[in-house]
Amino acid sequence: MITIKPKKGHLLIAEPSIIGDTSFNRSVVLLADHTTEGSIGFILNKPLEYTLRDLVPDTLVTFKVYNGGPVEQDPRAIWTLFAQNYHLFRGTPSQLWLDHSFEHVFGIRENLSSQSADEYYDHITNSLATPEFSPRALFDRFNIEALATTESALDDLKWHIQLSESEWNGRIITTYRPDAVVDPEFPGFADNVAQLGNITGCDTQTFNGFLKAHRLRRQSFKALGATATDHGHPSARTENFTQEQAAQLFQKAMAGQCSAAEADAFRGHMLTEMARMSLDDGLVMQIHPGSARSYDRSVAIKHGRDKGFDIPTRTDYVHGLQPLLNAVGMEKNLTIIVFTLDETTFSRELAPLAGVYPALKLGPPWWFFDSYEGMRRFRETTTETCGFYNTAGFNDDTRAFCSIPARHDVARRVDCAYLATLVATGRLRETEAADVAHDLTYRLVKQAYRL
Amino acid sequence: MITIKPKKGHLLIAEPSIIGDTSFNRSVVLLADHTTEGSIGFILNKPLEYTLRDLVPDTLVTFKVYNGGPVEQDPRAIWTLFAQNYHLFRGTPSQLWLDHSFEHVFGIRENLSSQSADEYYDHITNSLATPEFSPRALFDRFNIEALATTESALDDLKWHIQLSESEWNGRIITTYRPDAVVDPEFPGFADNVAQLGNITGCDTQTFNGFLKAHRLRRQSFKALGATATDHGHPSARTENFTQEQAAQLFQKAMAGQCSAAEADAFRGHMLTEMARMSLDDGLVMQIHPGSARSYDRSVAIKHGRDKGFDIPTRTDYVHGLQPLLNAVGMEKNLTIIVFTLDETTFSRELAPLAGVYPALKLGPPWWFFDSYEGMRRFRETTTETCGFYNTAGFNDDTRAFCSIPARHDVARRVDCAYLATLVATGRLRETEAADVAHDLTYRLVKQAYRL
Amino acid sequence: MITIKPKKGHLLIAEPSIIGDTSFNRSVVLLADHTTEGSIGFILNKPLEYTLRDLVPDTLVTFKVYNGGPVEQDPRAIWTLFAQNYHLFRGTPSQLWLDHSFEHVFGIRENLSSQSADEYYDHITNSLATPEFSPRALFDRFNIEALATTESALDDLKWHIQLSESEWNGRIITTYRPDAVVDPEFPGFADNVAQLGNITGCDTQTFNGFLKAHRLRRQSFKALGATATDHGHPSARTENFTQEQAAQLFQKAMAGQCSAAEADAFRGHMLTEMARMSLDDGLVMQIHPGSARSYDRSVAIKHGRDKGFDIPTRTDYVHGLQPLLNAVGMEKNLTIIVFTLDETTFSRELAPLAGVYPALKLGPPWWFFDSYEGMRRFRETTTETCGFYNTAGFNDDTRAFCSIPARHDVARRVDCAYLATLVATGRLRETEAADVAHDLTYRLVKQAYRL
Repeated sequence: MITIKPKKGHLLIAEPSIIGDTSFNRSVVLLADHTTEGSIGFILNKPLEYTLRDLVPDTLVTFKVYNGGPVEQDPRAIWTLFAQNYHLFRGTPSQLWLDHSFEHVFGIRENLSSQSADEYYDHITNSLATPEFSPRALFDRFNIEALATTESALDDLKWHIQLSESEWNGRIITTYRPDAVVDPEFPGFADNVAQLGNITGCDTQTFNGFLKAHRLRRQSFKALGATATDHGHPSARTENFTQEQAAQLFQKAMAGQCSAAEADAFRGHMLTEMARMSLDDGLVMQIHPGSARSYDRSVAIKHGRDKGFDIPTRTDYVHGLQPLLNAVGMEKNLTIIVFTLDETTFSRELAPLAGVYPALKLGPPWWFFDSYEGMRRFRETTTETCGFYNTAGFNDDTRAFCSIPARHDVARRVDCAYLATLVATGRLRETEAADVAHDLTYRLVKQAYRL
Repeated sequence: MITIKPKKGHLLIAEPSIIGDTSFNRSVVLLADHTTEGSIGFILNKPLEYTLRDLVPDTLVTFKVYNGGPVEQDPRAIWTLFAQNYHLFRGTPSQLWLDHSFEHVFGIRENLSSQSADEYYDHITNSLATPEFSPRALFDRFNIEALATTESALDDLKWHIQLSESEWNGRIITTYRPDAVVDPEFPGFADNVAQLGNITGCDTQTFNGFLKAHRLRRQSFKALGATATDHGHPSARTENFTQEQAAQLFQKAMAGQCSAAEADAFRGHMLTEMARMSLDDGLVMQIHPGSARSYDRSVAIKHGRDKGFDIPTRTDYVHGLQPLLNAVGMEKNLTIIVFTLDETTFSRELAPLAGVYPALKLGPPWWFFDSYEGMRRFRETTTETCGFYNTAGFNDDTRAFCSIPARHDVARRVDCAYLATLVATGRLRETEAADVAHDLTYRLVKQAYRL
Repeated sequence: MITIKPKKGHLLIAEPSIIGDTSFNRSVVLLADHTTEGSIGFILNKPLEYTLRDLVPDTLVTFKVYNGGPVEQDPRAIWTLFAQNYHLFRGTPSQLWLDHSFEHVFGIRENLSSQSADEYYDHITNSLATPEFSPRALFDRFNIEALATTESALDDLKWHIQLSESEWNGRIITTYRPDAVVDPEFPGFADNVAQLGNITGCDTQTFNGFLKAHRLRRQSFKALGATATDHGHPSARTENFTQEQAAQLFQKAMAGQCSAAEADAFRGHMLTEMARMSLDDGLVMQIHPGSARSYDRSVAIKHGRDKGFDIPTRTDYVHGLQPLLNAVGMEKNLTIIVFTLDETTFSRELAPLAGVYPALKLGPPWWFFDSYEGMRRFRETTTETCGFYNTAGFNDDTRAFCSIPARHDVARRVDCAYLATLVATGRLRETEAADVAHDLTYRLVKQAYRL
C-alpha cells in the first residue's frame, strides 16, 4: 500500500515543514495527520504520542491541549471528549477544515457534538477501512497533481525510492531541507556534517568538501523529483562572506566553538551559498524565518526539538536579506520564495522587495495565517505593491491529508472574494479577475515551483 | 450618598487604570469622569484640574487640548467652546460615546452644536440634580452586575470599607495594583515599601518580608472583594531569578542603587512572583505593558506622573513573557490576562501564546483600541489562532460613568458584526454565533475574572 | 512654453520627493513623468534612462523591470512589450492610474493589450502634439489650484524664477529640501555647505553662520512661493543638543570625521533646528523617514543615489521624535506633517502623537501606501485616535502629470467609502460625512500647507 511513513516522508503540499511543530498551536493534526503505511485513519485507532493524545488533556476547558503527559489511551474516549468541547474551535480554521472534511470527504451531514460523537467515530473508522479511503484512492479523488514532502539532507529517501520503483504513478516528490547540516546550533551538527560526508563520499571536514557534498546531495534529491529546497531559520539574516571567512566560520562550527552570533552568521552565509547552488541546479529556494522554536523549555526538554511551542517573532527582512539579495537578487533564473510569520512585514518589507528583485517571490500566508482572514490580509497588503504575479499562488503545508480539499477551497474562496471586491470597486475588469483566479490557483504555483 | 471618591476608588469596569492618563489623548473624561461624593455631574460645575479645563484651551482649533495652564474657569463658557468645536470629534469613539450618552442616558435628541449648547448645559445640569441621576440610581439603571476599581497596594481602601458597611448592595470591588511597591523607579519606592511594612506589620526591609507583605496585602484586598491584580509596566519583560538574585536586586532597589536595566529586571521578576502568589490565592493577574509614560517632560514636571502624554510603544511579548510563561504558563489554575497597546502583536505574538499556554487569556482591545475598528481588528487578528474562548470577553476601563452603556453597546455591536460575517461567509453556524455572542458579553468575562 | 525641467523643478503636488526613487518599485513613471520643456509626452519618444527603458527589460516575465543596462531603444517596441505584459499590473494602483489616464485624459475606451498597443501609441503621440495637451493646458483642465515642487537648498531655482517672471499665472511653488546640507553622509557634504555659504554670503564654516545661511535660503524659497520644507531622513531620530554640542558635531561633520552614529545624531539635531526656524518663518515642516535608500549596492554604484531600490524599514516615531516634540511639539503656531512607510505605526505611534501634540499632523499615506487599500487602512487605523482633523487631507507626490486626476479621484473615493461606512454603521451623521468629505479634499490641505 502506501509507502509514505510518519516522521520521514510525510504528506505535504509543496511547502514542507517539520512534523509536530503546529501540533499544539493548531488542531490541524486532528484527522489523518502523519499517515502510516496502509491507512490514514490510524489517529482514531492509535494516536501518535504528540498529536491527538496531547490534543485532549484530562480537563479540556479550552482548546489548549498540551499538558505534558499521557492522559487517555482509549481512542473512543478521546474522541468523545473532543466532541464535547468542539465549540472551543468556533471561528478557527480548524473547525472550518474539520467540518469541510467531515462533510466532503466522509459525507457526514450532522454537526459534531456530544450526541453525534459515537456515530462520527464509527462512521469514520468504517470508512477508513474501505479501499475508497486508502491514501492513494484519496490522492486520486482529491485530484492532486503533485505532492511534495520535505526530507533532511541526511535522509536515506528510501520511501521516495520505493515510490519511484512502485507501479503507482502519483507524483510524490521530495524537497531538500539542509537545516541539520547548515546550522551550527543544530543538535549533533559536526556528526551530521560527517554523515553528509559518508553519504556523498566527500571530505566534509573542509569547507570546499562540505559545499561539494551539498551539491551532490541536492542532485540526489533532484533525481527523486525535488524541484525545491527549504530553509527554516530563526531569523531572516543572510551573509555573503568571502570563502576564507566562511571557511573559518565553518571550522569553528565543526569544532563546536561558534558563539551564538557566529552560528547565526554562518547560517546566514549558507543561505547565500544555497542560493548560488540554486542558480546552478535550478532548485527553487524557500526561506521561512522567524519562529522562536522550543519556546517552552520544559516541553522541549521532555519531548525534544520541534514538538510545538513555536511562537512567531518580529522579523527584519530588509536588513536580513540584503546580503543575499545584493549577491543574487537580480538573477532572472533564480527563484527565492519567502514566507513569513510576521504579517507586519507584508506591506512594509516583503511586497516592496518582491516588487523590485526579479529573483524574489512571496509564498502564500503561512502557518498562523493560512486562514480566511490571514489570506485576505495577505492580498490586501501585498497586491498593490508587488501585484499578484510576484506571488507563488496557493500551496499549503498541511499534514492532515483529509484537509487538503478544505484548505485549497478556503484559499480559492478568499482569493475570489478579494478579486470580486476589486471588480465591484472598479479596480479590475471581470474578465481579468477570472484570469487571475486561475493563475493564483494553478498556473503561478506550477511556475513558481517549476512543476 | 456615594462613597467613591476621585483619585481614590474611581469607577471602572474590571480593567483598572490610572486616573488622568487618557485625559489628554481621548475625550473619554468629558462627562461624569471622576465622580465626587454625591453627584456624578460635577464636571459641568467644577471641572477637575486635568480634565475638562485642559480639554478646552484658549484656542481650540483641533481637539488637542492640553496647553499646560488654567484657561477658562466658567463651566458654561467651557461647555460652549466645546460645543462649538464638537465637529473635531467626528469619527472618534469620543463622539460615539458622548452622543450615545446624550441620547440614551439624558434623553436629548437634538445634536450638540453652538446652537444647542446652552440647552444641553441646562438639561444635563438639571438632570444630574435629580435622584434618578444619582450614581447608585444609574448603577441600577445601567444594570451593572459588578464594578471593579483599582487601588494602590498602599491605599487605605476606606471607600471600599464604607461601601461594604453601607446598606447599599451594589457590587463594587477593588483590585490590587502594586506598581508603587514593585517598581524601583516609582517615585518614593523605598518609602512606599516601608509604608507597606507599616500597613502589614511585616519587615519589608528583607525580600522575604517584602514578599510576605504583598501576600498579606492581597488578602486584605480579597477581603474587600478583589478577584484580580493589575500591573502596568513599561515593557512586557519578565524574569524568573533565583531568590538570592532577586533578594540582591531588591536590596539595591531599596538603596536607590539600581541601574535602569536592574530596575527593569526587578520589575520583571516581580511579575513572576505575583503570578506565583496568584497560584496560591487565586487572584487573576492582569498585565498591560507598553506605554511610554510621561512622554512630554514639561507636562510631567508641571503636572506630575500619569497626567497624560502616555504614548504606546512596540512591545515584545514573545521574549518578554518567556521567563514568566516558562515558570507558570502551563498552570491550569492560573489566569493571566494580557492587554496591549501594540496591535501588531495580536496575530504574531499574543494569539499564538494564548493559544498554547493554559494560563494565558487575551484581554479586550484597550485604550487606543477600545473602539469600533480596534475591536474589529482584534477579533479578525486573534480568533483564527486562539479562538474566542481564550479571550476574556468584553470589559472596559472607562472613567466616564455615563459612557458605560455606550461602550458595552459598541463592543456588542462589533462582536455581533464579526459573528454575522462569519455566518455569512460560511465559517460559523447561526446557532453557534448566537451562543458565542452571549459568551463574549457575559459568560467569558465572569469566568475570566472569577466573578 | 513650460519652464519646468526634469530633475530640477518637477511636477509634484505639495508633498515633494526625489526624482527616480519610485521608478523601479512602481510604474508611476509610465506616462508623462519628468516633463521636458515643451511636452509632457517625451517618454513615448525619448525614454529617460531610468524610467520606461528600465521598466521594460529584455524578458518581462513580471513587472519587475530593472536590469541595469540599456535594452531596447525604439519607443514603439518598448511600448508594445509593455502592452503585452500589461496583465502583470492587475490589482496595482499603477494599472488603476494608467487606465484612468487613458480614459479620462486621452479619451481611449478600449483596453490596453497587444492588439491595441499600436493604436494607443499613435493616439497618445498625436494627442501630445496638440495644444490641448500642453502641460499648461492640462494644468488648467485638471483644475489644479497649486502645485509644489521640491528643490535642493543649493538649487538656483531658475525655473521658478522664470515662471514667476512669465505671463502664466498657474501657481507653481517650490519647497525647501535641505538634505544635501544637513546630512553629513550626503555625497559632498562639506562642499555643499561651502556652496550654501557662497549662495547666501554667510560664513558656513561656523555653526552659527551655517544656521544663518539656512535662514536666508529659506527666505529665498519663501520669496518664490514656498510654504513648506521637506526632510527625507533614514530614521525618525531627532535630537535637541545644546548649541555647543551641535557646533562640535558640525565641525566634525565638516571635517568628514563623523561616525555613522554622529552623522545620525547631527541629522536628528538639524530637524529640531529646522523646526525652530519654522516657528520663526512659518514654513510647514514635512518629515518622511524610514526608507533604506540605495538598498541594492550594484544599482547604486552603477546609477548613483536615489535611483530606486528604496525599501521601507521599521520606524520608531515614539522615541525618535521625542526630543523634537519635547522642544516644540506644544507650539500652536508650528505645523509638522509626518509621513510614514511603516503602516504599523499609524495606530500605535503616529495617531496617538498627532492626537496629543498641537504641532503635529499626519500626512496622507505615502509611496507604497498611496493606494486604495493603503488609504483605507490609514483612515481605519488613525481616525479613532486622532480624528480627521489632525490629518493633512489628501495631497500626492506623483511625477506622472497625467495621473494627477486619477490619484485624487482614488483618494476621494476611498475617503468617501470610509465615511459612508461610518454613516451606515451609525458612527457619523450623513450631513457630517458630507462636510468631512470636503474638508479632507480641500480645506484641510490648504490649512495644513498654509496655501
